[in-house]
Amino acid sequence: MKAYQELSKEELLTLQSSLQKEFEDAKGKGLKLDMSRGKPAVSQLMMGMDIMDTLTSESDMKSEEGVDVRNYGGMDGIAEAKRLMADIMGVDPSQVIVFGNASLSIMYDTVSRSVTHGVMGSTPWCKLDKVKFLCPAPGYDRHFAITQHFGIEMITVPMLPTGPDMDMVEELVSNDESIKGIWCVPKYSNPQGYSYSDETVRRFANLKPAAKDFRIYWDNAYAVHHLYEDRQDEILEILSECEKAGNPDMVFEFCSTSKISFSGAGIAAMAASKANLDFVKKSMTIQTIGYDKINQLRHVRYFKDIQGIREHMRKHADLLRPKFEAVQDVLDKELSGLGIGSWTKPNGGYFISFQTMDGCAKAIVAKCKEAGVVLTNAGATYPYGIDPKDSNIRIAPSFPTPEEMAVATDLFVLCVKLVSVEKLLENM
Amino acid sequence: MKAYQELSKEELLTLQSSLQKEFEDAKGKGLKLDMSRGKPAVSQLMMGMDIMDTLTSESDMKSEEGVDVRNYGGMDGIAEAKRLMADIMGVDPSQVIVFGNASLSIMYDTVSRSVTHGVMGSTPWCKLDKVKFLCPAPGYDRHFAITQHFGIEMITVPMLPTGPDMDMVEELVSNDESIKGIWCVPKYSNPQGYSYSDETVRRFANLKPAAKDFRIYWDNAYAVHHLYEDRQDEILEILSECEKAGNPDMVFEFCSTSKISFSGAGIAAMAASKANLDFVKKSMTIQTIGYDKINQLRHVRYFKDIQGIREHMRKHADLLRPKFEAVQDVLDKELSGLGIGSWTKPNGGYFISFQTMDGCAKAIVAKCKEAGVVLTNAGATYPYGIDPKDSNIRIAPSFPTPEEMAVATDLFVLCVKLVSVEKLLENM
Repeated sequence: MKAYQELSKEELLTLQSSLQKEFEDAKGKGLKLDMSRGKPAVSQLMMGMDIMDTLTSESDMKSEEGVDVRNYGGMDGIAEAKRLMADIMGVDPSQVIVFGNASLSIMYDTVSRSVTHGVMGSTPWCKLDKVKFLCPAPGYDRHFAITQHFGIEMITVPMLPTGPDMDMVEELVSNDESIKGIWCVPKYSNPQGYSYSDETVRRFANLKPAAKDFRIYWDNAYAVHHLYEDRQDEILEILSECEKAGNPDMVFEFCSTSKISFSGAGIAAMAASKANLDFVKKSMTIQTIGYDKINQLRHVRYFKDIQGIREHMRKHADLLRPKFEAVQDVLDKELSGLGIGSWTKPNGGYFISFQTMDGCAKAIVAKCKEAGVVLTNAGATYPYGIDPKDSNIRIAPSFPTPEEMAVATDLFVLCVKLVSVEKLLENM
Repeated sequence: MKAYQELSKEELLTLQSSLQKEFEDAKGKGLKLDMSRGKPAVSQLMMGMDIMDTLTSESDMKSEEGVDVRNYGGMDGIAEAKRLMADIMGVDPSQVIVFGNASLSIMYDTVSRSVTHGVMGSTPWCKLDKVKFLCPAPGYDRHFAITQHFGIEMITVPMLPTGPDMDMVEELVSNDESIKGIWCVPKYSNPQGYSYSDETVRRFANLKPAAKDFRIYWDNAYAVHHLYEDRQDEILEILSECEKAGNPDMVFEFCSTSKISFSGAGIAAMAASKANLDFVKKSMTIQTIGYDKINQLRHVRYFKDIQGIREHMRKHADLLRPKFEAVQDVLDKELSGLGIGSWTKPNGGYFISFQTMDGCAKAIVAKCKEAGVVLTNAGATYPYGIDPKDSNIRIAPSFPTPEEMAVATDLFVLCVKLVSVEKLLENM
């Protein structure tokens, strides 16, 4: 197959008219598919239903330390839940606080607390003229939404296959005191599925930030979310790397079981140094008497330990892999060599990142929508929702079935072709 | 029995020496009782254990509107949970958002949001030189802790048996634009167990605040928490009263099932006007993808409706009433006519408020602690933890057994007598 760029105007026009016809046919099919969000499928949720039988009216409702999980108290989580979440992150249980059902809320609260109360004694950010965050992009839209909500200026840092562009991160962080944080999804990043190289993690740990209250917001959302048995990414553990580098307080790590147990009713945790946790607890003790410890106990009694989690995630992988492969197969078959798109092939996580020709992403997403396939809004993977090259599309294969994914991807590649042809003709 | 004030110095000295001896004996008993917090007893928690069997691996996990409660989404709560919480508060489900496990967190978040983002378009409080709250006192220490945490100045308003001193509230609120809120526990108030009179509620609804972003923080924590079948307080519903008065946006109402189902794992809600809820949701959509909807569904499937809640609360009352009566019996028998203390006799809620002679509360609490009975810190019921007359003690009878409560109250009255005698001698 020839690359589209090598086609003559006549060839492109012929191609356009046949693609246009195909597109009209596709529209007629009345598709209604959603690959916009990293939402677990019903099959995954069904697979975890046994957790609902874990605690019954006959259960011992005491934690291993004798805390009645039904009552008030135990603000920072029960010991066994700390251990479980610590094992997911590869940290020590003493470095962990267990919260409610969502790590997103912990991240929001962490930023909100910094705005009103600063970080470990620093000036509250609301008293500063300017606060900035570094945002590796493409990245996670909900991270960017938090910073934007609090009026924090976002600076885009390019994502490389090894992680954020560390030359740029080091340069910016060490020279600008108003830079207070950087959003990271270090493993199976959203949306590319990249995992940070050891060098990247070490360079993070060795940052010399101008701002004392600079923190790395390490959203380890996909720590155990592998797709394959034989190809698994592992990253260096950031807390101990920071300690080694003499920066023990520089990181807040977040994780949850949202994509392990139930996305609406899991448990979530933060890991950080003792000094950070002590400061967090000062606000927590005002904000809550404790999060839902029954759900914490339910999770530990069900999964038991990290081995139980890994076993469960192998079953998730068996459900997710065919969906990712359905997408990859269609992309490989239909787009290889055409020069109109490239895409990532992650070993885990929830997303595939697709790179179009410049200026095509919005039009492709719109075309897909026109024919009944909803993708994440183009631009969503960039700060302020603005992709400067209009070329990144996030594909979320988790929710539909593999068959639906194949159908949706067929439509997607058709739209990629059609929009690319139009763009090439436009530029002629 | 003569009032202590009528005793001669010699009589007081004799009394002191016999009380002192009694106290030494009591200390020798090695008591270890806690009546410091409004914590449900294990018997209450056991009574609700059937809720643990409500949802199993066989359950239909869809809400009545077809929302899969296991998955992401449904940010403001499932319809049936809104209805249940609305019925507890006596409002319309459309006025309700259901959150996580604690109304305290909703209140904290509500104040925090006002600090960073203002209220329905007003200037964020962090940009103002001065923000003040009115604090009816004695009141709930965790309310005061939230305002103090955000650097909000607290102005004490005296609590009367009809509610806060409304002359003072009206005067302050209508003349000071920096007053942004007032903390209220309108029914079975913490700690006195007072319920606001209809006149008080109407005067609240008709306030003419100088500040557009003034809100009444209406913590309806004990809405269905009656102790008696034949003596139940009811209060006017504040949202509709505010609407009638042309102040539809002036109130945030809070409630939870913490003292209905499980104090650590209930569900909590806010009620407010549509305009307020719309503004709250703007932040919520950044903070969370949704709270734990499984627990919401579990609660509705278990309690079914407000009748189920009332039935359940009758059983709670049967457990709590003997504890309150044990306290009242000892207080009546031992302190009536002595002129050294008065106390409330609430029809519901979780507390009894005890008023000592001026300057005695701290010493009494300390003495009780010395002999093994822990009370709420003296002063806790006032802003900044400072009771200007050092005369209020909160008694929380819920956690110990009735027998333990009798023993604890015996010690308490002994300490009241001893400290009062010492105070009278000191002033001679």
